[in-house]
Amino acid sequence: MSMNNKQIILAKRPEGMPDKDTFSFIDKEIPSINSGEVLIHTLYVSVDPYMRGRMADVKSYVQPFPVGEVMEGGVIGEIIESKSSHFKKGDFVLGSLGWELYSVANEKAVRKIDPSVAPITTYLGVLGMTGLTAYFGLLDIGKPQAGETVVVSGAAGAVGSIVGQIAKIQGARVVGIAGTDEKAQLLKEKLGFDEVINYKTEKNIEKAIETACPNGVDVYFDNVGGDISDAVMQHLNNFARIPVCGAISSYNKTEADIGPRVQSKLVKTRSLMKGFLVGDYSNQVTEAAEQLGKWLSEGKLQYEETIIEGFENIPEAFIGLFEGTNKGKLLVKVAEPESKK
Amino acid sequence: MSMNNKQIILAKRPEGMPDKDTFSFIDKEIPSINSGEVLIHTLYVSVDPYMRGRMADVKSYVQPFPVGEVMEGGVIGEIIESKSSHFKKGDFVLGSLGWELYSVANEKAVRKIDPSVAPITTYLGVLGMTGLTAYFGLLDIGKPQAGETVVVSGAAGAVGSIVGQIAKIQGARVVGIAGTDEKAQLLKEKLGFDEVINYKTEKNIEKAIETACPNGVDVYFDNVGGDISDAVMQHLNNFARIPVCGAISSYNKTEADIGPRVQSKLVKTRSLMKGFLVGDYSNQVTEAAEQLGKWLSEGKLQYEETIIEGFENIPEAFIGLFEGTNKGKLLVKVAEPESKK
Repeated sequence: MSMNNKQIILAKRPEGMPDKDTFSFIDKEIPSINSGEVLIHTLYVSVDPYMRGRMADVKSYVQPFPVGEVMEGGVIGEIIESKSSHFKKGDFVLGSLGWELYSVANEKAVRKIDPSVAPITTYLGVLGMTGLTAYFGLLDIGKPQAGETVVVSGAAGAVGSIVGQIAKIQGARVVGIAGTDEKAQLLKEKLGFDEVINYKTEKNIEKAIETACPNGVDVYFDNVGGDISDAVMQHLNNFARIPVCGAISSYNKTEADIGPRVQSKLVKTRSLMKGFLVGDYSNQVTEAAEQLGKWLSEGKLQYEETIIEGFENIPEAFIGLFEGTNKGKLLVKVAEPESKK
Repeated sequence: MSMNNKQIILAKRPEGMPDKDTFSFIDKEIPSINSGEVLIHTLYVSVDPYMRGRMADVKSYVQPFPVGEVMEGGVIGEIIESKSSHFKKGDFVLGSLGWELYSVANEKAVRKIDPSVAPITTYLGVLGMTGLTAYFGLLDIGKPQAGETVVVSGAAGAVGSIVGQIAKIQGARVVGIAGTDEKAQLLKEKLGFDEVINYKTEKNIEKAIETACPNGVDVYFDNVGGDISDAVMQHLNNFARIPVCGAISSYNKTEADIGPRVQSKLVKTRSLMKGFLVGDYSNQVTEAAEQLGKWLSEGKLQYEETIIEGFENIPEAFIGLFEGTNKGKLLVKVAEPESKK
């Protein structure tokens, strides 16, 4: 095992779609750790659409990534050296860490995860940020009732695939919108969605939504924005709820994101749209994670992962998010746990 | 006093701005009343922007006005003949009645109003539908807190002028957006608004909002939609609330109402937009009207009325709503009460 570190740096701010020039790889030495710190071997790196926002130099809910600094995101790693009484060698931890082979972290910056409860990758997915995002957005804002119709865009993604299943658990009828027939098949056959619209092959999305939602739309969980959302908005029932989780269709746009204004439709249907972030629910994470874990163990909730191998493929994996290459949670596997070798 | 009736009929559905050809006047006989009915002499007719929606043949929260039938809306009248034990000659009543000189109504279709409590016109304004609309939208959805910044568009209108004052009562800083310097002066000097932006003379609305709201926007009470709302949305604080009351800028548009999509902004700021109608709060009307009446009697709430004289001027008054001719509640005075003659 080489103990030289490698890091992926934000080389420049992307205009439009990020490409390989957006990132650069550098070699570094691994610093020694001080008291209260741990040295972590990176095992899995999470790539997520929200990171695109941090690559632009605009005011947002998180600080932009600085150019020339290592990229950062959800990571699962293994402690290989500890100067903290809270961690020992071989512990698995979750944290917001650098895109690098080895990270030094303060003991307060990472959280231990238990591989006997669930596979460690689930702490980045269904039991982690994306599962919690689905849980809070759907249940706190969407509030689906039995018999209602829930539409989910980005339905095959890490968040959407969980949203649809939780909506089914609540007794709703679930219509997903996804970009390949393979994804549609997965959602219907494995994850229990009632209908899935393939927005890439469907000529008239608005008509397709009307057909798939004969009783209209009560909850629209919006991951994508853009013309897909414009179309769903045409079929809102009175008192519909729209948790706005993201707008991936706009993240790489270089021109303005223009579409039909929503005000008249919101008044006519008395509907609610609300943006949210999983971080807004930090005081409810424990109970939510327990509920997700319970559904998982009961077999009510399935999860899907797309795992790309190799540290050097992190940039490509990230870019793939915007091309819809993933089904479920997209992760990059960087290394095998020491304990499994 | 002539006892022939006159009615204003929806002659055809308008495309774009309604004009005089939209309406026609007809003469009718006044039918005799049956048991349980009253004959009402129309005193004041309310003209309101929402009526434009009912003139189009589209699915909405209320049925479209039928072409060839009498227009309908909020009316205050005086009972001139009663075959109901609930009403006697000389009573003042409020109801949704025709644009006509005399109406026959079932005793259950109208409500007695007390002219000793407040001037009868206030039951169509500050103590009626528009005051209640301001009250519920601002307090139930906007939830302004002391020290927060509330922006109101259509600020000099029937609803907006009340919204701003209720927000001041809650301790908020209030910025209005209106279309003439005269309106701006009224809002600041008589109604206590902190700042008013004249959107017709202001070259850069977005900059003007930024200047008027140095701490950002916590609540945006949206009466207008369109590019004014686009500009306000650029200055939302985290967890902002947007009661969407109407979109008057779009009601007469013949082309699509296109603008910046809101999804990304809602996510970044975790803001809420919600459409509403006063009718959604029917079970809370009594307490709300009492509170408005209390503020009125305490002098905490002022109201403004623009009263146009003459039944034949109702169409012109209605069209004037979209040209911003009114300050406060726009009413047409059709007749003097019998009791005052």
